Amino acid sequence: MGAKQTKVAQPVGVTRAKYSNRVVLKTILGRSDGGLGLVGERVVIGGWVRSSKEETREPLPPSTPRAAEGVGKTGPRDVSSVELLQSRIPFFRSILKVVRRGNCHVPEKFEQVVPRPLPTSIALLHVGDGSCVASLQVVVASAMAPTIQLLPTGTCILVEGILGQPLVPGKHVIELKVEKILHIGTVEHEKYPLSKKKLPFEMLRDYSQFRPRTTTVASVTRISNSLTFATHTFFQNHGFLHMQVPIITTTDGEGFTEKFLVTTLLGKADKMEKPNTAKDSDGVGLEVIKSAAKEKAKLVEELKRSESNKEALVAALQDLRKTNELASQLEVKEKSKPETSLKTYKINFSEDFFSFQTYLTVSGRLHLESYACALGSVYSIGPRFRADRADMAEMSMIEIEMAFSKLEDAMSCADDFFKFLCKWVLDNCSEDMKFVSKRIDKTCIDRLQSMISSKVEKISYTEAVDVLGKVANKKFEIKLEWGAALTAEHLSCLVEEIYKTPIMIYNYPKEVKPFYARLNDDGKTVAAFDMVLPKARILLSGSQSEERLDLLCSRIQELGLPREQYEWYLDLRRHGTVEHSGFSLRFDHMVLFATCLTDVRDVIPFPRSYAKANN
Amino acid sequence: MGAKQTKVAQPVGVTRAKYSNRVVLKTILGRSDGGLGLVGERVVIGGWVRSSKEETREPLPPSTPRAAEGVGKTGPRDVSSVELLQSRIPFFRSILKVVRRGNCHVPEKFEQVVPRPLPTSIALLHVGDGSCVASLQVVVASAMAPTIQLLPTGTCILVEGILGQPLVPGKHVIELKVEKILHIGTVEHEKYPLSKKKLPFEMLRDYSQFRPRTTTVASVTRISNSLTFATHTFFQNHGFLHMQVPIITTTDGEGFTEKFLVTTLLGKADKMEKPNTAKDSDGVGLEVIKSAAKEKAKLVEELKRSESNKEALVAALQDLRKTNELASQLEVKEKSKPETSLKTYKINFSEDFFSFQTYLTVSGRLHLESYACALGSVYSIGPRFRADRADMAEMSMIEIEMAFSKLEDAMSCADDFFKFLCKWVLDNCSEDMKFVSKRIDKTCIDRLQSMISSKVEKISYTEAVDVLGKVANKKFEIKLEWGAALTAEHLSCLVEEIYKTPIMIYNYPKEVKPFYARLNDDGKTVAAFDMVLPKARILLSGSQSEERLDLLCSRIQELGLPREQYEWYLDLRRHGTVEHSGFSLRFDHMVLFATCLTDVRDVIPFPRSYAKANN
Repeated sequence: MGAKQTKVAQPVGVTRAKYSNRVVLKTILGRSDGGLGLVGERVVIGGWVRSSKEETREPLPPSTPRAAEGVGKTGPRDVSSVELLQSRIPFFRSILKVVRRGNCHVPEKFEQVVPRPLPTSIALLHVGDGSCVASLQVVVASAMAPTIQLLPTGTCILVEGILGQPLVPGKHVIELKVEKILHIGTVEHEKYPLSKKKLPFEMLRDYSQFRPRTTTVASVTRISNSLTFATHTFFQNHGFLHMQVPIITTTDGEGFTEKFLVTTLLGKADKMEKPNTAKDSDGVGLEVIKSAAKEKAKLVEELKRSESNKEALVAALQDLRKTNELASQLEVKEKSKPETSLKTYKINFSEDFFSFQTYLTVSGRLHLESYACALGSVYSIGPRFRADRADMAEMSMIEIEMAFSKLEDAMSCADDFFKFLCKWVLDNCSEDMKFVSKRIDKTCIDRLQSMISSKVEKISYTEAVDVLGKVANKKFEIKLEWGAALTAEHLSCLVEEIYKTPIMIYNYPKEVKPFYARLNDDGKTVAAFDMVLPKARILLSGSQSEERLDLLCSRIQELGLPREQYEWYLDLRRHGTVEHSGFSLRFDHMVLFATCLTDVRDVIPFPRSYAKANN
Repeated sequence: MGAKQTKVAQPVGVTRAKYSNRVVLKTILGRSDGGLGLVGERVVIGGWVRSSKEETREPLPPSTPRAAEGVGKTGPRDVSSVELLQSRIPFFRSILKVVRRGNCHVPEKFEQVVPRPLPTSIALLHVGDGSCVASLQVVVASAMAPTIQLLPTGTCILVEGILGQPLVPGKHVIELKVEKILHIGTVEHEKYPLSKKKLPFEMLRDYSQFRPRTTTVASVTRISNSLTFATHTFFQNHGFLHMQVPIITTTDGEGFTEKFLVTTLLGKADKMEKPNTAKDSDGVGLEVIKSAAKEKAKLVEELKRSESNKEALVAALQDLRKTNELASQLEVKEKSKPETSLKTYKINFSEDFFSFQTYLTVSGRLHLESYACALGSVYSIGPRFRADRADMAEMSMIEIEMAFSKLEDAMSCADDFFKFLCKWVLDNCSEDMKFVSKRIDKTCIDRLQSMISSKVEKISYTEAVDVLGKVANKKFEIKLEWGAALTAEHLSCLVEEIYKTPIMIYNYPKEVKPFYARLNDDGKTVAAFDMVLPKARILLSGSQSEERLDLLCSRIQELGLPREQYEWYLDLRRHGTVEHSGFSLRFDHMVLFATCLTDVRDVIPFPRSYAKANN
């Protein structure tokens, strides 16, 4: 949220939204006075009901004198005769004072002279519009709309009314007394998945079209929005140029990842009669069901351990049972499935759209290099893809490349960038961070705070192996030997037990890093690094790229990569080669770190696109 | 380029780049004094040779007294005996003044007393590092490195030296006298495609790995970087939240575009022996060659018309001839090609990665809606895909969606956004715009200027048809009747001949717009709009989306779209529906407008990924 945004936080009077005829709730509830200064203002607000109750109330007088003025100022308004009479009571009293002598006492009888209005039922709605954590209390008299339409969670309303102080002072310092209903978007209560309060995250994943209406996912979205803008701000301030790297490419950015093929050869397939195969109603196949079952089993275990959320555990157990049943049913069907694997076909890619094989990019760094080797420092934010069932298939990455820079430059840039992000979130998302720390993890604000000051520990791969070797009391599932990749248990041990802070590990054995990482003088390690966060999450990976043509060629040969694919990339070494380095940061892991959430599927907007066929 | 960036333009002394041991040229040449204030400073600079010449020069004295001080200040330096002697000449003179009496005159002979140094050869390099348009004049004595290594265009150098004023004052106010060479990245002159000066754009497209080293493409890249940051700044300032939409999706965002299928079914195909098919050495097939030939024929025509660039025309003609030959050769081979079209196969997608068909997204607006219908205003920047040979297959789009807003809100937001971009480029890229207007089109600065003030003409589709109908003198290839889509010739006529300004056309017949556009009360038109720029380029398309469940369902049915694909989308209407609108802006078209370039392939970083198999 840009500097200028804070400007709208404390305006004189209400600010109408620029491109819709309403007032954004943040401009009311985000004020330091919680909106009190706006009492009496007539506003149009829109949003979705987060919670509600029905109440029987004495008819409401104008909340305060100012409110009345407010009304006067802002145009005509129906004042019911009842309200009129009530507002006149003091007047009657004063007359009596004059008429009678001595200790004036207005008899009960007199007040009964004033016809007592019938109590009316009202809908008390707590409405949010996604602009801030807080919700506005909205009061609608049953006369205006059938309460039953308004009360369900998720109902959308656009209403006009007067801001006033609640009769019964509670957690809300102001409320909106509705005078005109402009729109109601109803909810089929029994069918609306969010009707049930506090749905656990793992359940929400199946409803990504509604998820952002929950306070938590809304906060996560605002935090992740803020991280995106922080990223651009940081790199623009350091003179980096943003550029788009191609998503459809023929170049494998790493040389050892399963890739998605992009084709139009099967384009018409959806119009073809499909072979009879084992699928559930959603068209989901056995393989997916099975892996889903594994996932869900894992979840159940977690929930059992945490013991925090009984409700979630019950739900998860039911879910798991259902999934296993389905799986076994499908298994039977699968047996009878015809063998139609395309892997056995000969495919003529000269018929394809690009008349050769194209893939979804795994990493943009190779393409960034050609711009860095002309313009200096460049960066890119965008989706990268891996056909990897153990992780997200699609993830948003921030990638940078800098000419005339070495491994240590990339490491210190990564360090500064990480600290900048932590500080930015604290400075620009304080409300959301407060909420997140209340709802998810109390420590998350302190954690970000400590990052800003503390230095990131930098150790070489070899040191890491030594240090881990010395952990006598520790038995690792996978025995660690120099040359092997560090596994999650190793990384956790380093970050959580030994250094107790995010660390950077550098100079890895060349075998465990991409072909383009620059070979060190020892001939065994390469100038590559990872930054590791708690829970063994790798936030970013970087390297100094090999600028020496001969060494790069021999790496490509050693790994048996298709040389012709990389000719354009080798050209950068043939003509005007330069030392350069960079890194790729996994955006979803940064959001996890900031919010203390634990599953990427809870911080990316549409996890369903990886699970079910409907978005 | 962020506000803070301008800060570094006028520092005291030189500023070392944060993440590389050098001084960025912009911080020297971008100063209002052109760098004069830095004369005498010792700096390390890096970059690529843009042009060069070899010269024979008298050995150089320290450029100015200040330079000498500068040296003193910044550490030891070898001063040749020759230079020493020269600097002493005034001293000798003054002695003579004292010794001799009366009109002192130093005889020629005397000066010859001072041993005349032998003239040395120097390399005069004009070096750019991509940070700005200007290049720095760098002087390297042949003694330091074989001139032949340094002179070729594209050579990369990292050098240390002293800034001074050129002996022969020319267009350069300062130059760098090199004292230490830290790195030379040589160029194979005869193989380096950019060795030839002023390569026409269409030739450059085949060398996207080198293109950004040309001054023009560098400027275009800086302008397009600036447009990206302007976009985030605009929407953040208006309280929009950025989010990533899924790239791999099962939902067709429009319902009438050819899509790319994403699959791992053919994943192993690259390891399979390929059938013998007609291909050129790059593995490019007949179809592509043919379409390339068409393209190139078009180009030749253009060049003939313009008559501007003879050199380009000659090159293009040769290119066309080669292409046609290749095409006919391949045609022969094609005859003998086995029929292996996959379109005839039955494919079992339950075997695929997601166990159902997934596509590359055509538009993110549907996914944006589910976040707008919870958080208010959201936007996304990212790649979108169409399997359309007539246009780019992959393009970067800026998409927005706003809840509680109507067609006119989206239109005025688009209008403001467009003007904001125009102003931002003028304010933040003045140097690049000056260069672009010199190199590409003199009018482009005025054009942006005029956009800021002039209002965008808004006309309904029906008006447009009427207006075009009245153009008596005009004969359109495609006769225009109400209900038909407006073709390029219609749009050009409106923008260039009738209104002479960008226009917005709204309320199109429902047949020519996506299924989700909101039906107007006339039952025939929908609340959709396009913004059209000169050359009939559609900058953005938007609409108010249909929020009424029944009407949306019947549109889906009318168009025969697979209903199950859209259930999640229909849910947004079932539960808490709201009026909302948005648009998609084609980023590459905005860059074309700002730079006055005419072919998108010249403004997207990697056009080759759509033509040849090597990036």
